[in-house]
Amino acid sequence: MSFSLGQIGLYTDYYELSMAQGYFYAGKKNDRVVFDYFFRSAPFNGGFTVFAGLYDLLEILNDYTFSSSDIEYLRSQGFKPGFLDFLKDFSFKGEIFSMAEGEIVFPNEPILRTEGNIIECQLIESLLLNILNFETLIATKAFRVWLASGKRAFSDFGLRRAQGFGALHASRAACIGGAVFTSNVLAGKLFNIPVSGTQAHSWIQSFDNELKAFRVYAEHNPEDTILLVDTFDTLKSGVPNAILVAKEMEKKGKRLKGIRLDSGDLAYFSKKSRKLLDDAGLGYVKIIASNQLNEYVIQSLINEQKAPIDAFGVGTELTTGKPDAALDGVYKLAWVNGQSKMKVSENVEKTTLPGIKNVVRYYDEDGFFFRDGILNNSEPVDSVQSIFHPIYSERQTNVSKLKKEPLLKKVLSKGKILTPKINPSEIFIYLSGRADKLPGEHKRFISPHIYKVGVSKMLLNERADLLGQYKGKE
Amino acid sequence: MSFSLGQIGLYTDYYELSMAQGYFYAGKKNDRVVFDYFFRSAPFNGGFTVFAGLYDLLEILNDYTFSSSDIEYLRSQGFKPGFLDFLKDFSFKGEIFSMAEGEIVFPNEPILRTEGNIIECQLIESLLLNILNFETLIATKAFRVWLASGKRAFSDFGLRRAQGFGALHASRAACIGGAVFTSNVLAGKLFNIPVSGTQAHSWIQSFDNELKAFRVYAEHNPEDTILLVDTFDTLKSGVPNAILVAKEMEKKGKRLKGIRLDSGDLAYFSKKSRKLLDDAGLGYVKIIASNQLNEYVIQSLINEQKAPIDAFGVGTELTTGKPDAALDGVYKLAWVNGQSKMKVSENVEKTTLPGIKNVVRYYDEDGFFFRDGILNNSEPVDSVQSIFHPIYSERQTNVSKLKKEPLLKKVLSKGKILTPKINPSEIFIYLSGRADKLPGEHKRFISPHIYKVGVSKMLLNERADLLGQYKGKE
Repeated sequence: MSFSLGQIGLYTDYYELSMAQGYFYAGKKNDRVVFDYFFRSAPFNGGFTVFAGLYDLLEILNDYTFSSSDIEYLRSQGFKPGFLDFLKDFSFKGEIFSMAEGEIVFPNEPILRTEGNIIECQLIESLLLNILNFETLIATKAFRVWLASGKRAFSDFGLRRAQGFGALHASRAACIGGAVFTSNVLAGKLFNIPVSGTQAHSWIQSFDNELKAFRVYAEHNPEDTILLVDTFDTLKSGVPNAILVAKEMEKKGKRLKGIRLDSGDLAYFSKKSRKLLDDAGLGYVKIIASNQLNEYVIQSLINEQKAPIDAFGVGTELTTGKPDAALDGVYKLAWVNGQSKMKVSENVEKTTLPGIKNVVRYYDEDGFFFRDGILNNSEPVDSVQSIFHPIYSERQTNVSKLKKEPLLKKVLSKGKILTPKINPSEIFIYLSGRADKLPGEHKRFISPHIYKVGVSKMLLNERADLLGQYKGKE
Repeated sequence: MSFSLGQIGLYTDYYELSMAQGYFYAGKKNDRVVFDYFFRSAPFNGGFTVFAGLYDLLEILNDYTFSSSDIEYLRSQGFKPGFLDFLKDFSFKGEIFSMAEGEIVFPNEPILRTEGNIIECQLIESLLLNILNFETLIATKAFRVWLASGKRAFSDFGLRRAQGFGALHASRAACIGGAVFTSNVLAGKLFNIPVSGTQAHSWIQSFDNELKAFRVYAEHNPEDTILLVDTFDTLKSGVPNAILVAKEMEKKGKRLKGIRLDSGDLAYFSKKSRKLLDDAGLGYVKIIASNQLNEYVIQSLINEQKAPIDAFGVGTELTTGKPDAALDGVYKLAWVNGQSKMKVSENVEKTTLPGIKNVVRYYDEDGFFFRDGILNNSEPVDSVQSIFHPIYSERQTNVSKLKKEPLLKKVLSKGKILTPKINPSEIFIYLSGRADKLPGEHKRFISPHIYKVGVSKMLLNERADLLGQYKGKE
């Protein structure tokens, strides 16, 4: 494989190109459209989702062009000369409105919308879904790990189990969701994320014995020595040898930073190791744990078992978003040339919301998030008195006196990114501030309370009108 | 994000670099080592695994070098000048021995081994695991889908739910495992995979009505028209409109290729649609089904429900390997400067096998795969009379009279790839030939029979000796 992010117009589904060609020849290429990005259920059976991937998407969109070799490839696939000439000069020149990266978001509300001509908005669908679905999944997973860890530090260790080059997006999103370090050095460089790591079993094994391996590592990394203690026998060999090395370091005015446990029962070994370290007067040596961790294991280690673990390394489940592995985000046409559009479905919950929309967050009296409301974008926010359940419209909530916050802002216009580039760790700060405003019952892992997202009366009526009209259009 | 596969030396875990620096300054940089790649359990609770990712890895290894900007980044992270000078000229010049891509492989046997100096073999660990673990996971998933589909064609539709740029590896691996087409155009171009696709709901919605949308699509794609029939109402609108268009196409001497169902109960709608098509004299129009498919759903549709579906589009679960999301492959040091090495573990099954090894496949009298045996590489294959259970060594199998096939071949030497570049579809042909030799009881999805992998007496003894020696090395 050899590719570079320079011109990646082909990073799309074939049907986007065949539709684009169809629009081109059907005289529709100047049709103005709006698409919405949203998902239908929160990942991990959770009560919230962390939106991520926006800035990555905006940057990659600038590379969404076609090289001459791409054009030749498409010619070999039967695409027509006129359309290929059009693609040569293609770039996305539409507008994107979006919630902020790190926002707490909920099912069925438009998190992002694109506005532009039908070809440009159609072509970028696959890329947009690919990036936003994945980073949102991983940022959500990471924030769950952060919630579970009781504000202890955790690192992304997942490169070796990540899904190919998806590792790059994964490490970025993991840090948006709360990981303090990544082991993935390229991601560290690309996204300005702190990188970290210690040594593998192979380091220990490559020496004649464990003590020598520890000594040499400490000698070459005196400021940042964390020793992996489970290569032979954690309590009989690894920890006693680490203690010896720590004492030798003390004589040179250095301090052993920590030990890492990577197998066996982490509750048992952390308690036994802590005691050995403390009895040796090494209360300052931290215990780092890794090995098949996830939010549930971490929660159990800390809350139930009171394991004296100071930091976690989380790999596979963090970077792959296991077991969900994907967020079901979709990108649906909502408006064409002034007309609202929707997709009807056999499942009434899957029928989409028509038209150009905004999302407003309503706060309760204590300053917590209370409801989200989806409005027609033309409605003044203050004019909306009540929001309604999107299906059972007899259920409504009066929002007239609540604090209101519109969430969709313009972030891209004519190829220019309008939102600042922010490091993942800074996005995390925004996220944690937002999450503080989300009541705890939505954040628990088991049967979380459902946060309610309603729609305005105007939107409800528009949908009902369209459903009626569609009866004649089938 | 902006990166190119040109120099991706930083695509590694931080600890590989900190260990490499340690080896460099500890006078170990010329140590000769051997690492093994293997995994510990088959994905998806299955009885077999399809090895994939090899050629991708070998090609990407050629890009595993450090740019001057990478060197400056590492300098900013505190790496030392002498080591950075060394990295400037780094490339992997060792040797790789591997099973073929598309091989049927089993837990705990070395699928690939690297031989070289300790720094080069250590640095590539993360990249190697990242590529091989993921492509092997997805090729296995795809082959399960292929087995389920009863040799019907299926396509990879997963780009939009894939894990970021992991989509590229996913599409390649999906085609190794049996997907006939991919929707991912860039993967199609990079890996020479046939690409395919039809239209989205947005195509239909962008027209005044469904019939017009169908007509325009057929007009512009007369040789390859597959119509998506569920935008409004599958049986009352979509299929009747598709039939109208098919009849119009017939008048022009063209044929509607198929209809696609993408929602609702696929068994119910495929049967009803088939009847409508057949009653209209359109027996040749195929039915393609998509929407949250996996091997179990497909097996049920075909075997239990006799759904008249001709081909499947499989997305999320195929390209993410849901629910596993990762293969637990590891890369373990087995040999240093003539000495065999192993990793001891609290869990006896996790103790690794020492030394330089080969894997031999033994065939039964009917030509089926019968056992795999792991040997010390220095043992003549014909000298091994019996293979033994790796833990319960009283269990043994006499293999002296069985047909024997050594599986590890040299595939890379001093930067030169020694194995031909083969299209994914050709690797699939190899795979399906191999899978024909695997008895059916290992291929079933529910409680598959465990294929047995044994070890030679020499290897057993070597491990026992080393365990004894380690008691003095802790």
